[in-house]
Amino acid sequence: MGKEFLKIIDPEDAQNTIAKLPINKTVEKVPLDEAYKRVLAEDIYAIINLPPFRRAAMDGYALKSKDTFHASEDEPVTLKLKGLVTAGKVPETEVTKGTCMEVSTGAPIPEGADAVVMIEYTEKQGDNVLISEGVPLNANITKEGSDIRKGELLLSQGVLITSDKIGVLSAIGMTQVPVYIQPRVAVISTGNEIIKHDQNLVYGKIYDINSYSISNAVKSCGCIPVHSEIVKDDYDSLKSSIKKYKDADIIITSGGTSAGAGDNLRTVLDELGKVLVHGIAVKPGKPTIIGLIEDEGEEKIIFGLPGYPVSALMIFRVFITPFLRKLASLPDFDQERKLATLKISRRYIAARGRQQYVLVKIKDNQAHPILKDSGAITSLAEADGYFLIPKNVEIIEEGTEVDVYSLEI
Amino acid sequence: MGKEFLKIIDPEDAQNTIAKLPINKTVEKVPLDEAYKRVLAEDIYAIINLPPFRRAAMDGYALKSKDTFHASEDEPVTLKLKGLVTAGKVPETEVTKGTCMEVSTGAPIPEGADAVVMIEYTEKQGDNVLISEGVPLNANITKEGSDIRKGELLLSQGVLITSDKIGVLSAIGMTQVPVYIQPRVAVISTGNEIIKHDQNLVYGKIYDINSYSISNAVKSCGCIPVHSEIVKDDYDSLKSSIKKYKDADIIITSGGTSAGAGDNLRTVLDELGKVLVHGIAVKPGKPTIIGLIEDEGEEKIIFGLPGYPVSALMIFRVFITPFLRKLASLPDFDQERKLATLKISRRYIAARGRQQYVLVKIKDNQAHPILKDSGAITSLAEADGYFLIPKNVEIIEEGTEVDVYSLEI
Repeated sequence: MGKEFLKIIDPEDAQNTIAKLPINKTVEKVPLDEAYKRVLAEDIYAIINLPPFRRAAMDGYALKSKDTFHASEDEPVTLKLKGLVTAGKVPETEVTKGTCMEVSTGAPIPEGADAVVMIEYTEKQGDNVLISEGVPLNANITKEGSDIRKGELLLSQGVLITSDKIGVLSAIGMTQVPVYIQPRVAVISTGNEIIKHDQNLVYGKIYDINSYSISNAVKSCGCIPVHSEIVKDDYDSLKSSIKKYKDADIIITSGGTSAGAGDNLRTVLDELGKVLVHGIAVKPGKPTIIGLIEDEGEEKIIFGLPGYPVSALMIFRVFITPFLRKLASLPDFDQERKLATLKISRRYIAARGRQQYVLVKIKDNQAHPILKDSGAITSLAEADGYFLIPKNVEIIEEGTEVDVYSLEI
Repeated sequence: MGKEFLKIIDPEDAQNTIAKLPINKTVEKVPLDEAYKRVLAEDIYAIINLPPFRRAAMDGYALKSKDTFHASEDEPVTLKLKGLVTAGKVPETEVTKGTCMEVSTGAPIPEGADAVVMIEYTEKQGDNVLISEGVPLNANITKEGSDIRKGELLLSQGVLITSDKIGVLSAIGMTQVPVYIQPRVAVISTGNEIIKHDQNLVYGKIYDINSYSISNAVKSCGCIPVHSEIVKDDYDSLKSSIKKYKDADIIITSGGTSAGAGDNLRTVLDELGKVLVHGIAVKPGKPTIIGLIEDEGEEKIIFGLPGYPVSALMIFRVFITPFLRKLASLPDFDQERKLATLKISRRYIAARGRQQYVLVKIKDNQAHPILKDSGAITSLAEADGYFLIPKNVEIIEEGTEVDVYSLEI
């Protein structure tokens, strides 16, 4: 009745295989408006000085520092006011010895001026301004290029473009941003019992789950789900589906990976490429497949997840999430996002010889194992996280402390 | 020269004022495809049983448990094979005393059968199947409704719809999901010196930063930036802009909030509504404004951020992010996302009488304060996080340990 598992390998070996999968990074330019949460694909150098001109850092009067050397509260210096420069305006005249111009924050400093005195240390009397303090050279002036000079490195390749980085790019007037292309992922649910939501739920059928949950999980990894389809669990249907998705960088299937019954993916991969992994010593998710196919001279990666929704999501979370994030050039993901170390609420018997992921609900500061099988979708509705039981441990006694990790993808 | 600050208040008092701002939640239905990362607005009850029928949990033979009571390896029981039920098919006949039907995982259990024996404990001989083990009642059968029964609570209002929850909703065939409407935020940059990216960078002008950085920061709070505009820093322009955005729930402006010079927002708010806060004892960001205007019988919230990009983002991060997330019904945000506790690399002199946020670069396991002023956008390019200096502390000595928080929004 079909093929046996290739060889059940340890999760660490599966992770090593995944780490060696081929990675192909390409670059595109997107408008600044669409660059949020993308990853910068090139070093960005300043194409202008910042600020682009010498400007006032405070509201006050632009003047010649030398004119104020002897100023004090008792003996203020009087300067003749020659006009006003507001932000965004070009100064109409220049500051000469014995004169000053009013400036507002952000306004260009008029020629001839080399300092700005804050409004607090002045008094206006008609066309004159009394300055009651010596003003050091360059006081309250932000020099052209003092923030960054034209040609200097502004942001490095590989940076995640968060809102502050958007601000940095907009400061130099960047409109098109070079970013890594988001990998395109096709998601296929296989199974003759699976129907779409617009079909009638007749006896023997169930609504599709995995194409929805996995397509959305793909988004959290910086990838784009490009197709989402239900395919009959037979050799021809699966083969033509896999060959059809030319525009996908990765294909993720679910269902039909068990040894014995549905071995169609194995057979398709043996023909179109090769199977790297079939069978991982984990629970749930043992029948996972990892393979490569040749597609127009390129190697395309295929992950075959188990059919049960909980198994499919756990394998995606533990094995595929780190890989897709790397493919999308997203910064290192803290795979082991620990929520808490908690005591387990009851004795738990683990699977023999397999690393096991146990969903738990956190309540009353305890980790309550969810005892449903991996066919039960409600276990996902209840779960707050999961903990891991090593391969060689079979019994976890009530009250044992376990590290609970976030499931969120 | 314009209005003074209303009254400089402590950051805690500003946070209290913000916590009391009016919140108006409305609900919409979105297709399941668009529900990812939205927040569920209603309790969801199962509208079908899950699984919707009695199904096989394993590949094997469906039979009457009673028929196998005396089966053993030495004396197997022989049952007559009446046919095959694969997943997605309706059984063509029923199991009667002394008979069985082959079933694959997920297939409906034929009438009359009350247990499934795993393939491993059987041997097929022509039309007969030899069973070498007693099979308990209900073995390897998943009962209809055993995962969840029609009418039971499946997911609770307020849940963030992650990919696993998408799976739960798809399991019951949900196509339209009730979610909270994402608050709409208009972002206005004020300033006569600010230009759009398609304008010429003539002398005295600078490219807009805040409408880009703040619009994107708004997205991370589960809100939609609906307008993003540059407005001249004068009373009439600002007033007509603020009145124009009927479709925005919140308006965030930046620039023109300093006491003395640009007091236009204060004046507009005094006329159209009221100013709740003008001036917070923090650095950067002292001239922040919080106000309400009457808009067609509803109160609309207006935040006026300082003009300097670093100040604007810091105030957004510390004061506005928690509020917008609450408005968007997003789960509690760990506002104080601590990255690490690190020693400060040099002595730092803080502002007197103000809580101060200091941007730092993390290097060699130390927090290196970035000493640029808040007009310097490159400080954001360099910063890995920030630490906080309390109001009453003026000097942080080199080597002092500080808690560094994530800036990321």
